[in-house]
Amino acid sequence: MNAPKFQELDTPTRVLLGPGPGMPHPRVIRALGAPTLGHLDPELLKIFKEEQELLRYIFQTKNTWTFVLSGTGTAGMEASLTNLIEPGDIILACIHGYFGERLAEIAERLGATVDRIERPLGEIFNVEDIDHALNNKKYKLMTIVHAETSTGAEQLFIKEIAAAAHKHGAIIVLDTVTSLGGIPVKIDEWDVDIAYSASQKNLSSPSGLAPITVGPRALEIIEKRTKPVTSFYLDLKQYSNYWDEIHSYHHTASASLHFGLREALRIIAEDGLEKTFTRYRANAEVLWHGLDEMNVRPFIPLEYRLPALTTALVPQGVDPHKVRTRLLNEYNIEIAAGFGTLKDRVWRIGLMGYSSRKENIALFLTALNESMKIR
Amino acid sequence: MNAPKFQELDTPTRVLLGPGPGMPHPRVIRALGAPTLGHLDPELLKIFKEEQELLRYIFQTKNTWTFVLSGTGTAGMEASLTNLIEPGDIILACIHGYFGERLAEIAERLGATVDRIERPLGEIFNVEDIDHALNNKKYKLMTIVHAETSTGAEQLFIKEIAAAAHKHGAIIVLDTVTSLGGIPVKIDEWDVDIAYSASQKNLSSPSGLAPITVGPRALEIIEKRTKPVTSFYLDLKQYSNYWDEIHSYHHTASASLHFGLREALRIIAEDGLEKTFTRYRANAEVLWHGLDEMNVRPFIPLEYRLPALTTALVPQGVDPHKVRTRLLNEYNIEIAAGFGTLKDRVWRIGLMGYSSRKENIALFLTALNESMKIR
Repeated sequence: MNAPKFQELDTPTRVLLGPGPGMPHPRVIRALGAPTLGHLDPELLKIFKEEQELLRYIFQTKNTWTFVLSGTGTAGMEASLTNLIEPGDIILACIHGYFGERLAEIAERLGATVDRIERPLGEIFNVEDIDHALNNKKYKLMTIVHAETSTGAEQLFIKEIAAAAHKHGAIIVLDTVTSLGGIPVKIDEWDVDIAYSASQKNLSSPSGLAPITVGPRALEIIEKRTKPVTSFYLDLKQYSNYWDEIHSYHHTASASLHFGLREALRIIAEDGLEKTFTRYRANAEVLWHGLDEMNVRPFIPLEYRLPALTTALVPQGVDPHKVRTRLLNEYNIEIAAGFGTLKDRVWRIGLMGYSSRKENIALFLTALNESMKIR
Repeated sequence: MNAPKFQELDTPTRVLLGPGPGMPHPRVIRALGAPTLGHLDPELLKIFKEEQELLRYIFQTKNTWTFVLSGTGTAGMEASLTNLIEPGDIILACIHGYFGERLAEIAERLGATVDRIERPLGEIFNVEDIDHALNNKKYKLMTIVHAETSTGAEQLFIKEIAAAAHKHGAIIVLDTVTSLGGIPVKIDEWDVDIAYSASQKNLSSPSGLAPITVGPRALEIIEKRTKPVTSFYLDLKQYSNYWDEIHSYHHTASASLHFGLREALRIIAEDGLEKTFTRYRANAEVLWHGLDEMNVRPFIPLEYRLPALTTALVPQGVDPHKVRTRLLNEYNIEIAAGFGTLKDRVWRIGLMGYSSRKENIALFLTALNESMKIR
């Protein structure tokens, strides 16, 4: 068998304006290159401690169990469910887009009976919908997505929804993949029981890591399990042993990715959450204004539109996919098509992490304008 | 809640001579910093294709299903089992060290009935042991570790063991975490059904990725499953869709890590497997000779001693942990303690990937000699 020969890595420099990944901050990219460390090196364990403190700030929580999982956001999603669910459990999945459905599918694979309530793409739940559903049956937990990457909608009222769950004896699993670092996520104030995110969206880091935080009710369920967690790889008790307690070996965490994430979280802490959110919002408004001037209308009402992810209606007569291809091939700009039934109707334009800069928006608006001209 | 403040990243430059991670090649470190790409960017999908070709060469296989999973070696281990096992399956775990036991534990968590056969730490199986065990019961699959990271022993006779498994109607799951890239792994010639590895050992890359290859018998089992794979995140059918078929979204692969791994695999292909193995062997012999001169004896007989991982008996009167601490704190050299009952009896000294260089060995021998003097 002959060895294949390939050229030196020669990839284009993309401006990433899709629904994630966002562009990593240059300081994060530099941090990746620091000399690597063993997975039990005291210097790496110190970095874990710092990441925990930084994440507690960004999640606005005091939860002891706040870790970074060695996998992408989907690993965070699966970890939340596999640690909480035992076969036969009954759960409620609140679905207002693709990632809500993914939570339901993962729960079913783990042997749960899943009841679904759904809102059409682009809409969100009100508290009554969920309270009503929770009243029907005794659910162990409910799942909901804070910021739906498939539609760009922010599910409001998380505090009230969590209260409804608790009133009915259920706990709440919250997906904050596209919200964390971009809009307020207040785990303790909202009384959310478990939440996970991903490194590559508003945290300005490469993908590959999934922050997670576990509150007291979820912790109690985990500690009272009768069977071991189905997944050894995503077993949070073992994360706790590795990160906090006896520092026992569980897996070989990627020091390089942790160097990057620590730097990314440090940048957010330097700016402070308030200033960070203000920047996202201000940049989003520049984008919305620019799109509006080109007759490209937002799909999501202002009330629950995400600053970091805009779903924009494709103007009549414009081929959305030709425009996307042109943006990528001629301008090195990545945006995404719509999801599912919205595939030909909208674009998804992200301003995540280091992608959220005025220069990117100015370039994008010009390039979009040019790209829409030729039909 | 106040934002925590931390200093700029300032980590020491370690010489990594433990049982993994090895040191990433400087070309790999540079590749990490390339501008990132979206997870469905045609340029990233091209990199996946190249990684597949390179991995087929290194695994010595023509298997179509050859992917890189977004997780560490343990994710590769869990993926192998979760895709093959359905609750109630009966499997045989051949255990000659910690990672053999880890395979058994994961299989049990997935609902399999696991029969174990074991060899004491530092020994390996002969074919008859395994053939005999396979004869007792109808097993769906057997698991075995090619290179035990806990002992530094190479399990020889994989070809004969695979033949025994097939004779009895079982398939073989092979752990090649510490073997791939360091000693020959001949998936097709040996007729191994599924094998996985990790990016951070002999592949000279940061941790965080797990190569995997799936042969026809394993593929057939996966395609004939009656229930979906318990893990959505590690579902290989979805990897196939993402990597090969319709390029449908499954998770956000870490472009940065893939840039690094592609470069690492390219370096191995440039040198060629034969030259790579010769280098590992030659460097190991320098280490063994040097240790011998200091009366530090190998724990594993030459016949099945791994070049990339040497387990060395701690001389009488020497405190192994004080020496390790001294090596780390005074010389920035990482080696590991022994595993389990070997904890106080041996050191584990790795020469993995870019760590396997004469300058590292010369430094290590000098530092070890100095560190053993003060008791």
